[in-house]
Amino acid sequence: MTAVAEIEEGTRLQPKFDADGLITAVATDAATGELLMVAHMNTEALSKTIASGEAHYYSRSRKKLWRKGEESGHTQRVVEMRVDCDQDAVWLKVEQAGAGACHTGRRSCFYRAVPLGKSGDVTLEFCESGRTFDPAATYRGGS
Amino acid sequence: MTAVAEIEEGTRLQPKFDADGLITAVATDAATGELLMVAHMNTEALSKTIASGEAHYYSRSRKKLWRKGEESGHTQRVVEMRVDCDQDAVWLKVEQAGAGACHTGRRSCFYRAVPLGKSGDVTLEFCESGRTFDPAATYRGGS
Repeated sequence: MTAVAEIEEGTRLQPKFDADGLITAVATDAATGELLMVAHMNTEALSKTIASGEAHYYSRSRKKLWRKGEESGHTQRVVEMRVDCDQDAVWLKVEQAGAGACHTGRRSCFYRAVPLGKSGDVTLEFCESGRTFDPAATYRGGS
Repeated sequence: MTAVAEIEEGTRLQPKFDADGLITAVATDAATGELLMVAHMNTEALSKTIASGEAHYYSRSRKKLWRKGEESGHTQRVVEMRVDCDQDAVWLKVEQAGAGACHTGRRSCFYRAVPLGKSGDVTLEFCESGRTFDPAATYRGGS
């Protein structure tokens, strides 16, 4: 097989990390299919997630490995994990513990809709009635 | 509001493009919730997607804007679009035309599972019985 065919059609995990050493990680709710969050993993976050079945990410802003929920208790147990064709993204189907995945206090990070058919300035529309938990009471620092 | 609060809690779309001028775009099947693909958008791909309701991406390998399906006919009509808390990712719920989203000939790019509870080398498991279309007959080049 060529190198590309081996990546796309092979059975060996050979993640394609970007210049910052990261791949994209997408977490959806295993029960509802809802997109919860998009984050990043470095090689350590990826191997810890695979070994433990608990979602680990790499925080670009805090420049550190992070087990989801280590501070908030809103952990993510990985029910199924997949990798995409060119191995630069993984999909985690998770059981989201606690009230939500988003550090703003919502179940999903994707709580605003972008109206279609518009040009120029776009006004976002909130999709959820409100927060499901109080971030100030949950976090000392980041997510 | 602070700058962060305005990004997270405001109604103005102010996408946070990375150093390469890109944000992450996640497309799921509007009917089934299946994750179809993860790609990227530059500012032009984003505005064209919003204005037209047809998914446009930016190809990092080919360094060009690309309307999904322009070559294969496997277009994506955007049913709903959302943006995440820090506005560096968008979620497209799409109606996928044709046989699939993946250039390898499959419905989804995420056709291999990563088994959990393992350390060291990981052997991927194919999740789909096979291709739904023949990429060689569909594409002259990429996408």
